[in-house]
Amino acid sequence: MTDAPDPAIPDTSLDELLSRIVPGDQDPVAVEAAAAAAARWDSRAKPPGSLGQVEAIGGRVAAIVGACPPDVPEIPAVVVFAGDHGVVADGASAWPSEVTGLMVQAMAGGAAAINAFATTVGASVSLVDVGVTGDLSEIDAVVDAKVRAGTASLASGPAMTRDEALVAIGVGAAAARVTIEDGGDLLVGGDMGIGNTTPSTALIAHFTASPVESIVGPGAGSTDEGIARKRDLIEGALQRLDPGSDPVDVLAAVGGLEIAALAGFFLGAAAARVPVIVDGVIACAAACVAEALAPGVSSRLIAGHRSTEPAASAALDHLGLDPVLDLDLRLGEGTGACLAVPIVQAACRALRDMADLPT
Amino acid sequence: MTDAPDPAIPDTSLDELLSRIVPGDQDPVAVEAAAAAAARWDSRAKPPGSLGQVEAIGGRVAAIVGACPPDVPEIPAVVVFAGDHGVVADGASAWPSEVTGLMVQAMAGGAAAINAFATTVGASVSLVDVGVTGDLSEIDAVVDAKVRAGTASLASGPAMTRDEALVAIGVGAAAARVTIEDGGDLLVGGDMGIGNTTPSTALIAHFTASPVESIVGPGAGSTDEGIARKRDLIEGALQRLDPGSDPVDVLAAVGGLEIAALAGFFLGAAAARVPVIVDGVIACAAACVAEALAPGVSSRLIAGHRSTEPAASAALDHLGLDPVLDLDLRLGEGTGACLAVPIVQAACRALRDMADLPT
Repeated sequence: MTDAPDPAIPDTSLDELLSRIVPGDQDPVAVEAAAAAAARWDSRAKPPGSLGQVEAIGGRVAAIVGACPPDVPEIPAVVVFAGDHGVVADGASAWPSEVTGLMVQAMAGGAAAINAFATTVGASVSLVDVGVTGDLSEIDAVVDAKVRAGTASLASGPAMTRDEALVAIGVGAAAARVTIEDGGDLLVGGDMGIGNTTPSTALIAHFTASPVESIVGPGAGSTDEGIARKRDLIEGALQRLDPGSDPVDVLAAVGGLEIAALAGFFLGAAAARVPVIVDGVIACAAACVAEALAPGVSSRLIAGHRSTEPAASAALDHLGLDPVLDLDLRLGEGTGACLAVPIVQAACRALRDMADLPT
Repeated sequence: MTDAPDPAIPDTSLDELLSRIVPGDQDPVAVEAAAAAAARWDSRAKPPGSLGQVEAIGGRVAAIVGACPPDVPEIPAVVVFAGDHGVVADGASAWPSEVTGLMVQAMAGGAAAINAFATTVGASVSLVDVGVTGDLSEIDAVVDAKVRAGTASLASGPAMTRDEALVAIGVGAAAARVTIEDGGDLLVGGDMGIGNTTPSTALIAHFTASPVESIVGPGAGSTDEGIARKRDLIEGALQRLDPGSDPVDVLAAVGGLEIAALAGFFLGAAAARVPVIVDGVIACAAACVAEALAPGVSSRLIAGHRSTEPAASAALDHLGLDPVLDLDLRLGEGTGACLAVPIVQAACRALRDMADLPT
């Protein structure tokens, strides 16, 4: 594919999307719903504050949807975006790029971790090929939205063009829109892409202004030597960034197609005021991109878990997000976010259904 | 009721129950299942160890049930034990004892936090009155297993007799047996009892050999003054303990009826090799009692969450349990444990259903 948008991909105007996103504290609807939720929690039949973070989650959903009590989300939907990374050829991962396609195939067959987790929490799983190297067009369960067959290596130049990054964002935003039109009322964004902790760490280093050395991690299992190689690759790529780069330029230079799509997915859900749960380090990188494009969008996101990858914590701090779970996960696919689904549902249900304090 | 066991309560020989509990590392069936689970996780389609604590949970369930992969628990069941505490009259709580009965009534009507959480995770909720002061016999949904109408105050003598403690343990063990006979394959033990952080903290201080000062907390919302009063009450009661006290004597002296029942519930589930999730500080105190009675029983328990109450962390350390969740909860009722249910199920499902590594 060239750098012109594919006409088959629904046209979502990024500017229009961004214009619908307002930081929570500047959004009267969100402020009012959050205050109503706090008051409602305090008058439920329990000691004030005794549901801890569950109360915060319920209040957050109220602010996102702009209503208190919010409806209990009943149709959780996971969307996994898959893409490959040219930087794998430069030693960014212990695994070959072919595994990306194999894992998407496993997901289509219901045999990956995300399938087990989604089944448990009653969530659907949709698969979107936004940039896998191999041909997945024969797999019915995979939506073909391939922008290009893997990125170029950020080791030697931009990972993709600016237009490709924009198209990939559009793919994610369209996926959010379609998922919501299909009834999805609690979204989970997942990723599959061998090598994608390297672009994610680069994006997080840039957007959080963190030293690469302090946030680069083993990803799916790199050795110390592998981590040092990742650090060098990322530092080199960030040094080559044009100082005048806007967030889309940065995404194009050091990002990935599935990361761009996840950023669009978060923007699409946020613009529609539908709660969306952020997964691990890849999703956190995408959330940083989204936040750079639409400051305050993080107030419409829920952090599902704290990945062990250090860059994830840097991103969560930057975004002001307190994750629901901390289970030492580092798999991606949306797995950690998926496990947070019932807790978000429970928070909404308790906020809606609990009796008043006995008087 | 006198100190003689009620003949209506099913006879469960404590000795027989205890004889069926073996520490995990001395139980060949558990050792074998845990090793099989670890090997199975490492050959699933994911980087080794990338599911973090979820892998540990799956391995723990395998060891508890003695099979790998374990069946996915499909019938989670919450049992809430309710009792009152004489020490409330001595200022142990900011709430009056009447609230215990009112909250059990709210649970029977489906309007408490535990109902909202249990509905979300598809769990049943059973209610057992093991020692509420008020009369709940008119509420059909409440099992009447009242051993006595509230304990005596530990401020001035033993909370109950040794026989009453044994009967309450038997009530809990019987509840576990009945729940399992009804199909329950993942149990959650909950509590309701105004004032019960005081006896729980006393039990945890004793069994973990922790200074009371270092573990006493606000419970449902005590002020600093209230916490100081609780500390004094607990220290006084522990000082009066006969040095020759066995675990049942300690439970009778400073415990509570619902705590005793929870200890029996954990012993009953463990003896039957059915996974049971421990809730907050009250359940942790009960687990310490169970561990004192049956050393190693903690290897057959799952810690659902880390309560904010400091005594809970002391107990978890003592028991060697790593909680699934850390959501700053301090409500009890089984709420935190209930939220861990889908994560335990997801761990078992992933262990059973994930594909082998692509080769």
